[in-house]
Amino acid sequence: MNTEKKLNMTMLCDFYELTMGNGYYQAGLNDEITYFDVFFRSVPDKGGFAICAGLGQLIEYIQNLHFDEEDIAYLRGRGLFSEDFLSYLKEFRFTGDIWAIPEGTPIFPQEPVVTVRAPAIQAQLIETFTLLAINHQSLIATKANRIVRAAEGRTVLEFGSRRAQGTDGAITGARAAYIGGCAGTACTISDQLFGVPAGGTMAHAWVQMFDTQYEAFKTYCELYPNNATLLVDTYNTLKSGVPDAIRAFDEVLKPRGIKKCGIRLDSGDIAYLTRKARKMLDDAGWTECRISASNSLDEYIIRDLLLQGAKVDLFGVGERMITASSQPVFGGVYKLVAVEDAEGRVCPKIKISENVDKITNPHYKRVYRIFDKATGKAEADYITVWDERVDEERSLELFDPRATWKRKTFTDFKVRELQTPVFRNGELVYQQPDLKEIQAYCLEQVDTLWDEVKRFENPHTYYVDLSQKLWDIKQTLLRESE
Amino acid sequence: MNTEKKLNMTMLCDFYELTMGNGYYQAGLNDEITYFDVFFRSVPDKGGFAICAGLGQLIEYIQNLHFDEEDIAYLRGRGLFSEDFLSYLKEFRFTGDIWAIPEGTPIFPQEPVVTVRAPAIQAQLIETFTLLAINHQSLIATKANRIVRAAEGRTVLEFGSRRAQGTDGAITGARAAYIGGCAGTACTISDQLFGVPAGGTMAHAWVQMFDTQYEAFKTYCELYPNNATLLVDTYNTLKSGVPDAIRAFDEVLKPRGIKKCGIRLDSGDIAYLTRKARKMLDDAGWTECRISASNSLDEYIIRDLLLQGAKVDLFGVGERMITASSQPVFGGVYKLVAVEDAEGRVCPKIKISENVDKITNPHYKRVYRIFDKATGKAEADYITVWDERVDEERSLELFDPRATWKRKTFTDFKVRELQTPVFRNGELVYQQPDLKEIQAYCLEQVDTLWDEVKRFENPHTYYVDLSQKLWDIKQTLLRESE
Repeated sequence: MNTEKKLNMTMLCDFYELTMGNGYYQAGLNDEITYFDVFFRSVPDKGGFAICAGLGQLIEYIQNLHFDEEDIAYLRGRGLFSEDFLSYLKEFRFTGDIWAIPEGTPIFPQEPVVTVRAPAIQAQLIETFTLLAINHQSLIATKANRIVRAAEGRTVLEFGSRRAQGTDGAITGARAAYIGGCAGTACTISDQLFGVPAGGTMAHAWVQMFDTQYEAFKTYCELYPNNATLLVDTYNTLKSGVPDAIRAFDEVLKPRGIKKCGIRLDSGDIAYLTRKARKMLDDAGWTECRISASNSLDEYIIRDLLLQGAKVDLFGVGERMITASSQPVFGGVYKLVAVEDAEGRVCPKIKISENVDKITNPHYKRVYRIFDKATGKAEADYITVWDERVDEERSLELFDPRATWKRKTFTDFKVRELQTPVFRNGELVYQQPDLKEIQAYCLEQVDTLWDEVKRFENPHTYYVDLSQKLWDIKQTLLRESE
Repeated sequence: MNTEKKLNMTMLCDFYELTMGNGYYQAGLNDEITYFDVFFRSVPDKGGFAICAGLGQLIEYIQNLHFDEEDIAYLRGRGLFSEDFLSYLKEFRFTGDIWAIPEGTPIFPQEPVVTVRAPAIQAQLIETFTLLAINHQSLIATKANRIVRAAEGRTVLEFGSRRAQGTDGAITGARAAYIGGCAGTACTISDQLFGVPAGGTMAHAWVQMFDTQYEAFKTYCELYPNNATLLVDTYNTLKSGVPDAIRAFDEVLKPRGIKKCGIRLDSGDIAYLTRKARKMLDDAGWTECRISASNSLDEYIIRDLLLQGAKVDLFGVGERMITASSQPVFGGVYKLVAVEDAEGRVCPKIKISENVDKITNPHYKRVYRIFDKATGKAEADYITVWDERVDEERSLELFDPRATWKRKTFTDFKVRELQTPVFRNGELVYQQPDLKEIQAYCLEQVDTLWDEVKRFENPHTYYVDLSQKLWDIKQTLLRESE
């Protein structure tokens, strides 16, 4: 089954990757070594940070990268590509290097999340899928992390498959939501493929299929006495839903000594209904009955519900998480930052724009995260040229690249390089942690951020600064481009 | 390749479909014949209508529906399902009936887009995928159609793969965008799989890879003289981009007698830059050079650009179309509407809600579209019980189900039933048109709508009315549920 559910996505590329690839080949540029960065320019929902995800799928894609006979035949039929280029594609494999920030890491605008070093034609071809995988899963992991933080320790489950944007939106979307902190998903295949715990009990149809709601509940409790979460809003939540549930619990679970059970609400005012339902359950002795709620939730509504005293143990979040509906795009881009000359020297490249924010940071770079030694908190990220090292033993002066007079000196800090080697000469050199470890790492890393950076609205802007050397190179390139 | 790119998506289901399925099986309800409707409650972006899409993928899914050994093993490992149920799943096939409104049809809230008649367990299991396929592609087709209409006859291309929500979001998203009226896509695999015409020429990296922009342009024109669209905004659009493009056209294309070429802008103010660029191209004799623009476009920006006299021949639309970013969710739901009793009689079912708009239209139904004979325009949709027929020879009185005193009588009308049989006893009985035909049908059907229904903002609400018989049954069920 796994093989059947893994696809060769080589042809999922923008057509211009192929016209450029053929062009590089014809112009003798195909073996030119290029460096491309993936980075993004702003955090969705005006948040203070994003969560990086999607590397798992990027790895699978790179490992499986090849053109099948049918692919070559399709391309030949387009009448644009030379036969020598098509022959080249038959043998096409990725032979370059990839560095990436591990999944689950908080990331910030302008820093290289993924860096690719490869012959031009290879680096170009993987652009579309690389962006798609990182953009999609980072979007969902970031949104999920916001929602999980809003729930303040309560369980959050991903329930959105039916409203996801396509099958992969559901399947790897649930994976990304888990990385961001969700406890599980409704999506069965995401459990089977990735180990995202899948669960669920009943829809309204179950209740409608029986002559009475009570009979539907009783039957369910008998079938699943240890997993009985009853949907109580098919007819009238407080008039019949909760009373019928209590009756079924009393008649089926109580004699068996089972105290754990649940009810779920999928409509109506959750603050009001859960307070009332909680009291009815407690009065009936079902204090361990957990209340789930699942009606168009997101971080803002969950925060408001909790402020209003809603008695919810578990939030099921659907469309607003699986599509990140408040801002459904993660704007990662893929830009050429350097080429190697004939002697193997790395020559920085820049992309100018009339929009200052769109000017790229040139060069093959490194990203360091500076942690305060005393508090363990992340203080700033520091981007350098590839051959610079940060010495923890010496003080480090950082400055804002958009306001260079703003300077801050760090002493007593620890430093960690964020990118890790993933592919080396086309070989995978990275041991991907399992998904549970990625989730734990994510939550632990989010804990290193100051609360000011974690605010949902108007957060503090975390520092992402350039080294003096990198800044100087950028200025030189900008002057030269005039 | 095709088989490698087709997946068995049986396990892409909400886990509760399986707990309910096992429950129906244990409770002896698995062979009970049920009717479920897919319908939606409001048009995205407050539009006047939606475009239905996704049936193609639903058909593939149903045809391929089965549980593999590994799937059964996974389910057994969950410890929730009886062995007899797992044995049943091994032989599981879809044996029911499906009716659907063909792809490309304008659809309206509350009407059944897809209707499933099948044994409870089968109808339940397909809920998640059915909704996912219809919701996703209808969302994108609807958005694409808005954008295409805003472009007023100019070409619109889908450019959004890198920002799509997952691989399928890109692949079938491009398919849906084509149904809605896009002329093509950048996504190569969507061409290969579905015949959505894919195209593209160069990214900024191509320009950066050469010592000069002019050299990059000249090389491209030499390689692709009949397909030379040059990206002119890498450095400075008007100062060097357009002049370098003209020089390359003059030196490479002119001697060959080629007049067709193009430039593309991906940044800056499109209204200003394209007016200037158009004049520069025309003055240089390149009046047939087409101008493409592709910077964060949607229907609103395109409309404004055209109002401001932008000289654009071709719009490339990315993230805002492929994610339908202004409202990225199509809220289709899947509700039980009837069951058959032991004698095969169809018994209507209703889902009550404290929110009046969420009360379902019960019963196995038909949807008719009423066209005015003189104008050919669609006037109303009319939902009836399954055994009702509309007679074009007699006048037809419709009333608003939310305001029953509002009545309108139609004479001289033509009527068309919207749903068509797709599966009969599990066998495909529908010949899916090819994608080009679906697109042509879509544009033709959109033409049957009054302009008032097609307004982007505050459109006229199209009538979707219930027959007297259906309305009476609904009222009876509502009274009985009290």
